[in-house]
Amino acid sequence: MAKAIVLVSGGLDSATVLAMALEQGLECMAVSFDYGQRHRGELECARRVCEAAGVRDHREVTIDPAPLAGSVLTGGPGEVPRPSGPGEVGEEIPPTYVPARNTIFLSMALAMAESEGASQIHIGANAVDYSGYPDCRPEYIAAFDRLASLATKAGVEGRPIRVVAPLLHLTKGEIIRAGVHLGVDYGLTSSCYDPDDREGPCGVCDACVLRAEGFKAAGAIDPLAEPCP
Amino acid sequence: MAKAIVLVSGGLDSATVLAMALEQGLECMAVSFDYGQRHRGELECARRVCEAAGVRDHREVTIDPAPLAGSVLTGGPGEVPRPSGPGEVGEEIPPTYVPARNTIFLSMALAMAESEGASQIHIGANAVDYSGYPDCRPEYIAAFDRLASLATKAGVEGRPIRVVAPLLHLTKGEIIRAGVHLGVDYGLTSSCYDPDDREGPCGVCDACVLRAEGFKAAGAIDPLAEPCP
Repeated sequence: MAKAIVLVSGGLDSATVLAMALEQGLECMAVSFDYGQRHRGELECARRVCEAAGVRDHREVTIDPAPLAGSVLTGGPGEVPRPSGPGEVGEEIPPTYVPARNTIFLSMALAMAESEGASQIHIGANAVDYSGYPDCRPEYIAAFDRLASLATKAGVEGRPIRVVAPLLHLTKGEIIRAGVHLGVDYGLTSSCYDPDDREGPCGVCDACVLRAEGFKAAGAIDPLAEPCP
Repeated sequence: MAKAIVLVSGGLDSATVLAMALEQGLECMAVSFDYGQRHRGELECARRVCEAAGVRDHREVTIDPAPLAGSVLTGGPGEVPRPSGPGEVGEEIPPTYVPARNTIFLSMALAMAESEGASQIHIGANAVDYSGYPDCRPEYIAAFDRLASLATKAGVEGRPIRVVAPLLHLTKGEIIRAGVHLGVDYGLTSSCYDPDDREGPCGVCDACVLRAEGFKAAGAIDPLAEPCP
């Protein structure tokens, strides 16, 4: 049975990726990253998603937050933007962009894959209904995949660790439909960049807007009536 | 004045890279990584190297050591190898290889570069007199440089952060000659993978052997009579 490292953030995309990898019969080790994010409640969601999926090996890796300081999600200046309407999402790189975040996550996952003998890294990057982050684009994922084969002993020995991004070209609606079909409980996930401890998701940040549009497009109801505590 | 992030390990290669970057008139921010390495004394050497070079901004970034566990340098099984002679160095990837180490270091440096407005990352990777690590080869450095331009907002906006590896094609003798010329005090550096607190460098690991050969080839005396405490 092939082994995969699956990046699980606690959001809906990565919960879907995990379900897809398990459906393929892969042995999945999940990893979540604590990088001092404003929306740290997602780590608790990641734990619940992994538990519900029956993943026994879920690691939480701490990332020193200082190098990532240039974003509103990591204590940088400014506020999480509140688009006035869905049309504004994704037109330029927003202040919620975290410098080199996926590169750091994938590099840690690459080390884990090599240490643990996994041959694949699964990530929920998406380049359709997304916030316009450069490190979610197909050309970025392809470049990291190439880097991974050059960077590692496994790659030199002809066993490159592959980066798999199954959501890359799906719409948010298609992602949610696939997840619902696989039995993902989206009530365990969290998407909001700026949740309130008592009120839950803000409903107006990019992530909330994209999530709401996705459920609408999928013809599904978002079970997230209550915030993930 | 262009700004550069310089990776400073406490070893002789990166001390030379720092001197070269300063000689070019770059504004240098140094970064060292604490990844639970066996030879953690090198971090104290990194501090001294930066201080001697007059670098005012030297950051120490902690890397969660768990994902890097597959190496004898990070608590993995086995011993630091003791080659019986110099000819044995570099013939295959040794157990001192740390999974994805340079990818993790460069990804953290990339985040710092973008957060701090630096346009370059300088690294002391060397593919001539080296231990055979895959992530020190020219094709690896080129792949990360390409990744960096795709990964970042700076790259998308036409200001890609470049990876500079000035030692890539130099022999250890050439590196040391260049450093001596620039006034690097190699007595502040540490190379040994397995130093003894009291005895200092072991003298027989790959790193010690490469260092000794380099000083011999450069026609210079290694000032490291006493270990860096």
